[in-house]
Amino acid sequence: KGGKFGERWAEICEAYGVEVIPVDIEYGKAVKPDLLDYLLKKERDVKAVFVTQCETSTGVVDDIERIANVVKGHNVLLIVDAITGIGVHPLMMDDWGIDIAVAGSQKGCMLPPGLAFVCVAQSAWDAIEKSILPKYYWDFKKMRKGLGNKTTPFTPAISLITAAGKALDMIKEEGIENVWKRHARLAHATREGIKALGLELFAGEASSNVLTAVKSPEGIDINSAIKRLRDETGVTITGGQEELKGKIFRIGHMGYVNDFDIILAISAVEKCLYENGYKIELGKGVSKVQEVLVSCKK
Amino acid sequence: KGGKFGERWAEICEAYGVEVIPVDIEYGKAVKPDLLDYLLKKERDVKAVFVTQCETSTGVVDDIERIANVVKGHNVLLIVDAITGIGVHPLMMDDWGIDIAVAGSQKGCMLPPGLAFVCVAQSAWDAIEKSILPKYYWDFKKMRKGLGNKTTPFTPAISLITAAGKALDMIKEEGIENVWKRHARLAHATREGIKALGLELFAGEASSNVLTAVKSPEGIDINSAIKRLRDETGVTITGGQEELKGKIFRIGHMGYVNDFDIILAISAVEKCLYENGYKIELGKGVSKVQEVLVSCKK
Repeated sequence: KGGKFGERWAEICEAYGVEVIPVDIEYGKAVKPDLLDYLLKKERDVKAVFVTQCETSTGVVDDIERIANVVKGHNVLLIVDAITGIGVHPLMMDDWGIDIAVAGSQKGCMLPPGLAFVCVAQSAWDAIEKSILPKYYWDFKKMRKGLGNKTTPFTPAISLITAAGKALDMIKEEGIENVWKRHARLAHATREGIKALGLELFAGEASSNVLTAVKSPEGIDINSAIKRLRDETGVTITGGQEELKGKIFRIGHMGYVNDFDIILAISAVEKCLYENGYKIELGKGVSKVQEVLVSCKK
Repeated sequence: KGGKFGERWAEICEAYGVEVIPVDIEYGKAVKPDLLDYLLKKERDVKAVFVTQCETSTGVVDDIERIANVVKGHNVLLIVDAITGIGVHPLMMDDWGIDIAVAGSQKGCMLPPGLAFVCVAQSAWDAIEKSILPKYYWDFKKMRKGLGNKTTPFTPAISLITAAGKALDMIKEEGIENVWKRHARLAHATREGIKALGLELFAGEASSNVLTAVKSPEGIDINSAIKRLRDETGVTITGGQEELKGKIFRIGHMGYVNDFDIILAISAVEKCLYENGYKIELGKGVSKVQEVLVSCKK
């Protein structure tokens, strides 16, 4: 539970009467694999570990490879929320031994929202077969049967599935390793631009390549500043959610994004802070981004 | 339970442990409101009646107004699957006293599939507040709270919602009464065309304006005939599902459909049957459709 989406895993389980042992993580920090190992040794009845690869609410990326290594030592399933992580950070389902991964269409997959993807490893089917929790539309057995006949058990969002085929073609053409590198490079440039403005990264060392979360400067009403920026220029920067409201702002850089998008985003941050009375040296962020992008070749 | 979608209501209830008293209806026939009244008098513990307005699997339309009148006399909720009925047959939720209606984007609403709409009358909220069945994403209380803030509790299929706004503008411009009339007229022409070919309507008097279900002629393999037609001409006529496989074929005429679509559909039926050895007088169906469409003014 290191953010809104980690908490959502817990809420979903609890809604279905599944007992949850929360692993509380300070917002902005990653899961410590050692702590997870300790807890799994202590709690012998755990059936599954739910983690979030990229916690969009805090900008943190978890080290799924190390987490998977820890989980492998215990007789439990590993279920990963890769909704924003997919296509941005590597996720080697088979190599790392992930049992179930969930992804969405609207982030690294470059599509409008409306589709969820669930990848189920062979290792998870035993639990699925035995599952007695009530379900109808989300019955994986029905889905597997449908896929075997090249169809789906219920009418799907066909236009988005067609678009997904196209997006996957684009990713295949670029090469998934290059897609990961592109995101790493753009995220690095964003972080350097932010630091050059004297601002602090919320997720520090654990900052993901999905989005950059930044601590809001003292004495500025970040949410109304962001709203004004959006209304005046059409650039959307996002504030914090729930407990983090007013405390951070977030710059997304996943999916169909290039160098100029990062320049634009940092220039918008500069404008937004400057016009709302926060002292920055105008141009310092964009210069730094420019410098990083030119020196770090693609 | 007069078809696949009536059966689905029962399956969904049973998946969640809700006891179901099935009202078995012969396929191709409508629900008899008197029988429903009799059953509701006999079974005093019933909490809700689930019906399907248009049973897409059989082409039947149920008389929801009369059903609602019966249900009103008992202390139960009326929940209507209006997924294909909406925008084709009238459904006066408030006037008739329907508690919950469910619709989809992909039929009379003229959109690609991917959205479900649920209309909840004030009268249903008491049951929703008391409901203890497990749910997370389909929590109506969360949805109502979100809508109050002009948002949704989870990321929705935004591109389809935007398209839905456009489709509703089109329906508003045509006028819903005119939309109903257009469907009634096109369905009538389709039925007359089918009868002129010596074929029999599967749903007889209960035929809906959503689609026309036709009994497959003896001695013809309707499914492979339909498949060949689709591959050769791109025209899709649908076969029967499950128990009705091979026994009927179905012509859809809901949504963004006009006179020429009906001419085309009946000409395709003629071609398909003729080329597969079934004796018909070529042109007899299309002539009849042409005649009906010209004589029945819009």
